[in-house]
Amino acid sequence: MSNFIEPIGKLINSFTKLPGVGTKTAQRFAYKIIDMSEEEALAFAESVINCKKKIRYCRVCGNYTDMDVCSICKTRKADVICVVKEPKDIFAMEKVHEFSGVYHVLHGTLKPSENVGPKDLNIDGLIERIKEGDVKEVIMATNPDYDGEITAMYVSSVIKPLGVKVTRLAHGIPIGSDIEYTDEVTLSRALTDRKEL
Amino acid sequence: MSNFIEPIGKLINSFTKLPGVGTKTAQRFAYKIIDMSEEEALAFAESVINCKKKIRYCRVCGNYTDMDVCSICKTRKADVICVVKEPKDIFAMEKVHEFSGVYHVLHGTLKPSENVGPKDLNIDGLIERIKEGDVKEVIMATNPDYDGEITAMYVSSVIKPLGVKVTRLAHGIPIGSDIEYTDEVTLSRALTDRKEL
Repeated sequence: MSNFIEPIGKLINSFTKLPGVGTKTAQRFAYKIIDMSEEEALAFAESVINCKKKIRYCRVCGNYTDMDVCSICKTRKADVICVVKEPKDIFAMEKVHEFSGVYHVLHGTLKPSENVGPKDLNIDGLIERIKEGDVKEVIMATNPDYDGEITAMYVSSVIKPLGVKVTRLAHGIPIGSDIEYTDEVTLSRALTDRKEL
Repeated sequence: MSNFIEPIGKLINSFTKLPGVGTKTAQRFAYKIIDMSEEEALAFAESVINCKKKIRYCRVCGNYTDMDVCSICKTRKADVICVVKEPKDIFAMEKVHEFSGVYHVLHGTLKPSENVGPKDLNIDGLIERIKEGDVKEVIMATNPDYDGEITAMYVSSVIKPLGVKVTRLAHGIPIGSDIEYTDEVTLSRALTDRKEL
């Protein structure tokens, strides 16, 4: 970035910290900022600072919130808890408009290879919620990859003794996809989990 | 964006103002900001404000600079002036490392359809520079599209009477490309401008 004068170089450098943004894209973003009016650029910078300063984790479920307890925990019945890896998974689930229970964010998954154990995840909080509340079912909605699977298994083994029903999101062929192009693992899982019509 | 709490929604909205960034990407950017440390996020916002506040146009050539006159105008001989549409074209030219003259930024091109005329461009500044200085050649490096071509023609017709040599970047088949896939206009131009070996 030797060609750039310092303030532009620094801004380009900032933008490259965003996921999937290389120097070329960062350069285009920087030009856009320079082309903005002063108010627009200030509003842009303020939205960054504001978001970082105001957002914290919900005391109950670990979701992002700008209050003490998030709006989902505040307004919904807590008889079904959907356990997810990260707050962004909640946004994905909410878009479906079919789940009306509450969430619990683990803030990660077990990673034996990187020494991430149960104590590093928000599992104790989940146990407490089950012990205290009137929870009937816990849906494990961690990703269907290695780390997500072992996390679902582990959490399930810990909370089942508390007398709660534990379920897992179904795996199988995605709707709209082609069987021809479905990978073997998914196809094998779809076969094992086949349903009677 | 109804699913998002206000500070996150606002930040996502900010990011969608960047070129080529849709809601999904803006969402990923926002999560990244939330995951940053407070110092990192502050530094990010500051680089936006700083860039916007410090960057102005060079008094001589119209390039971006954080001083009164840009470093190119300050250090190079002004006998050859390369005329470009926007400051970002200067960065592109500089990457070639083959041009050692100075630049002149028009800040746009003529657009008869949108009522952008000669008075809206930085053409008077160029005439002044030619009249005052010891300019031997002006290279027209506007884009090879309709607006760029008529701008090059117009500027050329205005400055030629001042006794300066006016040239245009060569058009033709891009290096490394396939003749089979070259569009007709480019190929026709390459044929017209063919060179003796």
